Amino acid sequence: MIKMKRILVKETIGRKEEKVMLCGWIHNIKKFKSFAFVYLRDRSGVMQMILDDMDMLEKIKLEASVKVTGTLKVNEKAPGGVELAVEELEVVGEAKYDLLPFSINGRDIQASLEKQLDYRTMSLRRMDRRAVFKVQQEIVEAYRAFLIGEGFSEIHTPKIIGAETEGGSDVFMLDYFGKRTFMAQSPQFYKQMMVGAGFERVFEIGAAYRAEPHSTWRHLNEYMSLDLEMGFIESEEDIMDLEERLIGFIMDHLKEKCSSELKLMKVELPKMVKIPRISLTEAQDILLKEFGKKSPVGNIDADGEKLFAKYVKDKYDSDFVFLTKYPASKRPVYTMPDPELEGMTKSFDLIFKGLEITTGGQRIHDYDMLVDNMVKFGAKPESFDFYLESFKYGMPPHGGLAIGLERITMMILGLDNIRKATLLPRDLNRVTP
Amino acid sequence: MIKMKRILVKETIGRKEEKVMLCGWIHNIKKFKSFAFVYLRDRSGVMQMILDDMDMLEKIKLEASVKVTGTLKVNEKAPGGVELAVEELEVVGEAKYDLLPFSINGRDIQASLEKQLDYRTMSLRRMDRRAVFKVQQEIVEAYRAFLIGEGFSEIHTPKIIGAETEGGSDVFMLDYFGKRTFMAQSPQFYKQMMVGAGFERVFEIGAAYRAEPHSTWRHLNEYMSLDLEMGFIESEEDIMDLEERLIGFIMDHLKEKCSSELKLMKVELPKMVKIPRISLTEAQDILLKEFGKKSPVGNIDADGEKLFAKYVKDKYDSDFVFLTKYPASKRPVYTMPDPELEGMTKSFDLIFKGLEITTGGQRIHDYDMLVDNMVKFGAKPESFDFYLESFKYGMPPHGGLAIGLERITMMILGLDNIRKATLLPRDLNRVTP
Repeated sequence: MIKMKRILVKETIGRKEEKVMLCGWIHNIKKFKSFAFVYLRDRSGVMQMILDDMDMLEKIKLEASVKVTGTLKVNEKAPGGVELAVEELEVVGEAKYDLLPFSINGRDIQASLEKQLDYRTMSLRRMDRRAVFKVQQEIVEAYRAFLIGEGFSEIHTPKIIGAETEGGSDVFMLDYFGKRTFMAQSPQFYKQMMVGAGFERVFEIGAAYRAEPHSTWRHLNEYMSLDLEMGFIESEEDIMDLEERLIGFIMDHLKEKCSSELKLMKVELPKMVKIPRISLTEAQDILLKEFGKKSPVGNIDADGEKLFAKYVKDKYDSDFVFLTKYPASKRPVYTMPDPELEGMTKSFDLIFKGLEITTGGQRIHDYDMLVDNMVKFGAKPESFDFYLESFKYGMPPHGGLAIGLERITMMILGLDNIRKATLLPRDLNRVTP
Repeated sequence: MIKMKRILVKETIGRKEEKVMLCGWIHNIKKFKSFAFVYLRDRSGVMQMILDDMDMLEKIKLEASVKVTGTLKVNEKAPGGVELAVEELEVVGEAKYDLLPFSINGRDIQASLEKQLDYRTMSLRRMDRRAVFKVQQEIVEAYRAFLIGEGFSEIHTPKIIGAETEGGSDVFMLDYFGKRTFMAQSPQFYKQMMVGAGFERVFEIGAAYRAEPHSTWRHLNEYMSLDLEMGFIESEEDIMDLEERLIGFIMDHLKEKCSSELKLMKVELPKMVKIPRISLTEAQDILLKEFGKKSPVGNIDADGEKLFAKYVKDKYDSDFVFLTKYPASKRPVYTMPDPELEGMTKSFDLIFKGLEITTGGQRIHDYDMLVDNMVKFGAKPESFDFYLESFKYGMPPHGGLAIGLERITMMILGLDNIRKATLLPRDLNRVTP
């Protein structure tokens, strides 16, 4: 085959008669008597090609990867307004299956989600499946760009840790050269420590591990956590202010960068308005009064979150709501108590269309207060020396938050299962592929 | 204290007499009879302040975090040309130590590396220590920007995996709900699979785990791997071409974004020239002829790498060299054999100033060839079903590489230990802080 620079399908748009080389997979074949329409799919789109060499046609199979040269022809009926008259076609990656696990080129995949995940590399060959991850990538890109603009530093902290960060028993244990260690449930301690180490403002895009032995539409056992932490704040309101601007920034970014993906998935981005901030107690009262819905002590259950989201949508026209001032008993040991509300904390969740996508708040920065709180929580301060040490040397007032990347992706795209927003999910039953 | 918007120390430069608020840590105190110079350090720099309230001075301790308001005064003798006459000073984060682990404000830290790592959040309070991570962040930023420009997608793959990827016994095991799983030694299988899934070009910035029970200046047990993989290549030369441009892009980016950090650390960036590509066999011959240095079969040892780097620097004026065509016996099972060189592979390492910072090459993309190779290597293909499955459906020719982030950071900055380029290192003896 002659040497040419490969171009992408999307780069053929607007071209006239011209010799080009394309690479990709055989997406579809429509045979006629003396020629065939063969559709080539690359990462950018699908191209209609005309093949009149019937011997060549014999050699190709759906989903084989090929390199093709030919001449572009304007054809208004072809998708993209242009088609390719094939001159040479080389199979560079052979298809060696008896039967495809499911059809790639139909209107949708006719298989269960589990089967689609079993054959993840096949289901992702569909553009509408990969589009999810384009949007996810741009969420991350916007998150990073926004925070760098706000003076944050990106950090990478270890996931093998000597002590649990979030408490509870839901932690994976790892044998580290004979030492009992854990997989980090979050970078919580480290991001706080790095604020105190002089970075002042840090963020991390990294894996978090929760050994929760359940399998639901909204939980993963390994997920990507978008974490941030910020020093020299006045209160948790500063963190909510920051997140409000961040979410607006992400939506604007997606509008600009993902219009074709959003169109393909028929997704409308949420309209951004001032996000209401409502205390947990007030929200519980509203749920009881408006919907006759009782809430568990110090919390709102999943159904309550949905009902409350509806109430907020109706009243404030907002898809988002901050629930604030959770009781200390329901928040981790490092959460700053609210001096004006006995038993409550300077914490918040962000609820997006009825699902919690963020937990955040102000943290305790005083060494003695933190040690006392650990004792109160029944934790042994001496197990957390590596963390507490930082608090002896002028830790500034600080706070932060974490956003579950797969959750925010799922909710923006209106997906009904978090696995659809995860490239290779890990759950109770799945460690492969 | 009155409400004002905080500004950074670097933002005071060029200002005239003006009331401002600063936040940061007490970096140094020089007492005189009726006043004191107090130095405030924030993430951007150090400010000289004049404090004449000797009662206020009593309240502050080195490294306490404070909020200060006062009036800027032009003073040519002050660092930055401006100093602050303090009006109000509030300690927002108390210092509660008896003795600092080591002095932060001296010419250097007078403590062993181990002690500096034990008190990582203290050693990082020095600007020259944090500067390492500014450079590291910009290496990552450049890596990402370059690859996005080349049409790559950023992916996040799981680190809990059902099968070992790189072989060998150096793998951490994890109990996953009673199942035996592993911590990923690399995202190798997944990045290949995602090429085949239709992304064509992918990269990942993620943790990799090696349970190697040794402690050296250049190894970590958990490190950040800059991985990439690319489909529809002609040969491993395409990957080397890409890396060569990538490295040049990174250096240009650092020159632009990190000039003050590089100056602070007295670092000169390598001059970029065409990177020589020399086969392993040829390099071994040169080592023997030029230096009388014998090499182990199919490899070059650490000393050999250093000698060879010197040879390349003298002959080609390059700090980098690609060593190519390693024997199959020394490369992983997925490495593409070189059809023109019996027993050799289409693989390479990139050596930077005598240290390997990249391993890469073309991979096997044919299903049968890969299965045969697994059998030849003594691996059980059935254990790798989740990986092999992808190769049945038209996997295109592909290749890729991985760069150790801490290694490239260390080598660019001329550090003598990889732990210095790691925020919170994990090694044989260290899982804290």
